[in-house]
Amino acid sequence: MTHLDPDGDAIGSMIAVHLALKEMGKRTAMYCRDPVPEMYQFLPESGKVKDSLNGGKYDIAIAVDCGDSKRVNSEIDLKGLAGTVINIDHHPDNTKFGDINLIEKISSVSEILFKLFKKMRVKIIPDIATCLYAGIMTDTGNFRYDYTTPETLEIAASLARSGAEISRIAMAIYETKTLSSVRILGAAMYRLETSQSGHVAWTVLPKQLMDSLGAKSEDLTGLVDQIRTIKGVEVAILFREEDDGIKVNFRSKFKANVSDIAKALGGGGHIRASGAIIQGTLEEVKDKVLSEVFKVIK
Amino acid sequence: MTHLDPDGDAIGSMIAVHLALKEMGKRTAMYCRDPVPEMYQFLPESGKVKDSLNGGKYDIAIAVDCGDSKRVNSEIDLKGLAGTVINIDHHPDNTKFGDINLIEKISSVSEILFKLFKKMRVKIIPDIATCLYAGIMTDTGNFRYDYTTPETLEIAASLARSGAEISRIAMAIYETKTLSSVRILGAAMYRLETSQSGHVAWTVLPKQLMDSLGAKSEDLTGLVDQIRTIKGVEVAILFREEDDGIKVNFRSKFKANVSDIAKALGGGGHIRASGAIIQGTLEEVKDKVLSEVFKVIK
Repeated sequence: MTHLDPDGDAIGSMIAVHLALKEMGKRTAMYCRDPVPEMYQFLPESGKVKDSLNGGKYDIAIAVDCGDSKRVNSEIDLKGLAGTVINIDHHPDNTKFGDINLIEKISSVSEILFKLFKKMRVKIIPDIATCLYAGIMTDTGNFRYDYTTPETLEIAASLARSGAEISRIAMAIYETKTLSSVRILGAAMYRLETSQSGHVAWTVLPKQLMDSLGAKSEDLTGLVDQIRTIKGVEVAILFREEDDGIKVNFRSKFKANVSDIAKALGGGGHIRASGAIIQGTLEEVKDKVLSEVFKVIK
Repeated sequence: MTHLDPDGDAIGSMIAVHLALKEMGKRTAMYCRDPVPEMYQFLPESGKVKDSLNGGKYDIAIAVDCGDSKRVNSEIDLKGLAGTVINIDHHPDNTKFGDINLIEKISSVSEILFKLFKKMRVKIIPDIATCLYAGIMTDTGNFRYDYTTPETLEIAASLARSGAEISRIAMAIYETKTLSSVRILGAAMYRLETSQSGHVAWTVLPKQLMDSLGAKSEDLTGLVDQIRTIKGVEVAILFREEDDGIKVNFRSKFKANVSDIAKALGGGGHIRASGAIIQGTLEEVKDKVLSEVFKVIK
């Protein structure tokens, strides 16, 4: 199982665990509350991911890429579901909710799994290589973020030698944007605002605008990263109006710890990438968030 | 020396050759007709690149990343400049203009140089590693294009172990966009047109629009790649009005050979990335180019 609103490392590492267990002759089921985003549907066996556990009984529940058991689904009691809960994760604030916790603060769960599989002598078949490559590639922002180590690249190379097709995976994930996502990107960049120093940049996407461009939530993937790419911007923020509140995504470049900022607002995440869902109008939430950010950087 | 309108591999490989020769006790001068773009000015010794040869006499002229000697500067006679001309390049249509030609059709000249330096037992000092990493990273579209091999990633890992700082280089190059470049991207995506099937997508940037947003030529780097990232788009085209004609950039995804298309229009390049400068009005050039593209894909 993996976390709601799944990303590439969530889906890639979950399927990799499933394939490895299958290679070992085990029976498995894959669970994610939310559907596999279209850009990850090229991954092998992604069609087998279920959004329901059907009251099944399991010997072991393995959660990947979940800092907290609530990230799987706050309505599911993992300990009641299986005799043993295994928690494999790379988030620094992991709550160690498993009976067995394998936490390593490296680029991705996929990188942890590569090392685990090597130790366990699981054969890295091409399908496993593809899933792990996709997980590492997406969680490092395509080998750009600062936890991309020489070892990360060596593992990526090894996965490519085991059958992960580099450009096919990159194309499938990064080059299958929808027209509406490109249009919303255009609108977002046009509406960009910055603090006086230019260190903080943000854009606000009202529901009405998204609807008028036919943009869905998954069309916004990567948009906040694009804001961060502007010279001088240390903190990038995306505000989007959704049904369950205002979703706020943070990215930082060198200086600010946006994990702390998100936590202060009831959210969570990493130093360089975090988020929160906040109740209120777009204007209220924007003011609240910016005043929190301006405490750290203006 | 390297080519006009230099990219990351051009600048990175030129400086790497300079540093390697310096390590070997040679005296060198670096030449490029056009200035080093701002995003590459963090590279070591980039400030020493000259735009004039001052009538100097040289034992050897080394051209990197130039498919043709005219790419250095059509007004310079390389053979008259130095006793020996060495041509190190990776373009498939290289004219072999050197007395010595080291042509290998791999990701980048930087990748060729890594292998050459290893054979020559040149020590890969951190500054050389940084330049070669920047060259490989940029010419592979950040490890995405289809000539990114497992060996490319292994070399990148080795360069990182030799002192290339992965995230610092990626940030310096990809995350120092100007506000005007982000605004022109917004405008370009808003103005996007596609063929009926959606296989061909293009955008047209008149000089007036670029001027009104304060956008310069180098603000457009990567824009055509963004167009290609749309699902179903096989050929992406950027038309921009410049003083010396209409600059047309092509990118292809899986099917079309845009090197052939560019050649038919008097330009050149690779199968997946090419360009041409064409005389005429924006409308005339657009019609001419699209009718050429539609012969291959509609």
